[in-house]
Amino acid sequence: MGKVICLGLGPGDPELMSVRADRLLRSARHVAYFRKAGHIGQARQIVSGILPEGAAEYPMEYPVTTEIHFADPEYNRLLAEFYEDWANWLAELAQREDVVVLCEGDPFFYGSFMHLHSRLQGRAELEVVPGITGMSGCWTATGSPITWGDDVLTVAMATLPEEELVRRARETDALVVMKIGRNLPKLRRALAAAGRIDAAWIVERGTMNGQRVQRLSEAEEVAPYFSIVVVHGQGRRP
Amino acid sequence: MGKVICLGLGPGDPELMSVRADRLLRSARHVAYFRKAGHIGQARQIVSGILPEGAAEYPMEYPVTTEIHFADPEYNRLLAEFYEDWANWLAELAQREDVVVLCEGDPFFYGSFMHLHSRLQGRAELEVVPGITGMSGCWTATGSPITWGDDVLTVAMATLPEEELVRRARETDALVVMKIGRNLPKLRRALAAAGRIDAAWIVERGTMNGQRVQRLSEAEEVAPYFSIVVVHGQGRRP
Ligand SMILES: C[S@@+](CC[C@H](N)C(=O)[O-])C[C@H]1O[C@@H](n2cnc3c(N)ncnc32)[C@H](O)[C@@H]1O
Ligand SMILES: C[S@@+](CC[C@H](N)C(=O)[O-])C[C@H]1O[C@@H](n2cnc3c(N)ncnc32)[C@H](O)[C@@H]1O
Repeated sequence: MGKVICLGLGPGDPELMSVRADRLLRSARHVAYFRKAGHIGQARQIVSGILPEGAAEYPMEYPVTTEIHFADPEYNRLLAEFYEDWANWLAELAQREDVVVLCEGDPFFYGSFMHLHSRLQGRAELEVVPGITGMSGCWTATGSPITWGDDVLTVAMATLPEEELVRRARETDALVVMKIGRNLPKLRRALAAAGRIDAAWIVERGTMNGQRVQRLSEAEEVAPYFSIVVVHGQGRRP
Repeated sequence: MGKVICLGLGPGDPELMSVRADRLLRSARHVAYFRKAGHIGQARQIVSGILPEGAAEYPMEYPVTTEIHFADPEYNRLLAEFYEDWANWLAELAQREDVVVLCEGDPFFYGSFMHLHSRLQGRAELEVVPGITGMSGCWTATGSPITWGDDVLTVAMATLPEEELVRRARETDALVVMKIGRNLPKLRRALAAAGRIDAAWIVERGTMNGQRVQRLSEAEEVAPYFSIVVVHGQGRRP
């Protein structure tokens, strides 16, 4: 009787993986990971130097990423089916053997694994190993602390409506915005309206090869999938 | 010419340290860490099985923790002097050799190291290694994802005024509250007023020996220093 073990891999630099994730990977026999069809997959890439030879690999390819809007019922139907199928398959395999699922950052923090996790409840033994979040990697790359004293930190997705982004940016001390991609122009307008654009930084591919840290006001109009916008808090500092 | 390297140690379980932190610790010759006078110190405890014999240790003992209220100017004066002294000392040592500073969780996330970091700018080469935050360790311990889809996550300190805690709890999807201690009764009232107390969990000593996960409504009136309250988001799930 095996189990399904989801390993948080951290922000991208393989050395920022936990000792436990590293140890479990080095003896893994079955390894599953999400990826966009036609890509290697960031999670798979992180573990390139670590996976033992001969480990069986199971790329779980999203049936849709940004081709259909997430509010379209078809998007939902396709993804639900996809998670259902893989959950069945993992539950089956875990009857006999351990299987590791790779996850960028921390699995329970906006990770795709949770859609398998909820479907696997009661059907397989489950273990989740937390990881360093992408945002920790990104604010560390800016060289300044994200929060001080009693600062409130708000984490919001750039997929939210513009007015909500304005309000969130106004009403917080420190701000982290994720899932940027094609939402960057909207996010810029929102930060400008909230009077916070000059204090905003954008970190692309934090801790990965090709990391870039820039003031948002000086960055280009497009950002890669792995981008995070950060506004640092200014709280109490003795 | 050495440098000051701050290592995020993660939430408590030594295996949740990053591979890089583990590697740097195993060859460390000078190790500094904060602690409350008369205590071993949580950061020091995490590295017990890892520090090489013969490493020089420098416990940095807070001159005050909760004996004086943080709004009292005397609290500020004492702490400023303390950070100033240690920054001078670290800058001096780093002229000649590397020195490692231990930090619980992620250093740039409400960590004490930032008060040294700001004072060391331009005076020593600095490196910060991110870590798994205490909150990641805690929400993983609850067995449920903290955020889904477009959920907004708010991180707030229980030291905030009660009305502000009520407002923050009302206006967010997912909530994390840290620095609980003697603020627990106030936090309970605030969560009750916001209608969220029944969905709140308290995690004591997440990932450490003696970890406890309970519904907040069933927990005692007092909580240890290492406690986090979590309200999970309920966002989009295909
Ligand atoms: C589906 S979420 C997954 C978050 C992940 N579970 C974590 O803990 O960071 C994907 C988003 O995370 C952000 N992200 C994660 N790692 C990143 C990195 N190293 N650099 C920049 N952005 C990153 C990007 O905003 C991306 O759109
Ligand atoms: C000064 S902050 C330091 C946060 C740390 N830098 C981090 O990244 O988690 C101290 C607070 O962190 C929280 N905390 C950190 N680790 C924890 C753990 N393992 N279990 C419960 N609470 C924890 C507690 O709320 C505590 O009051």
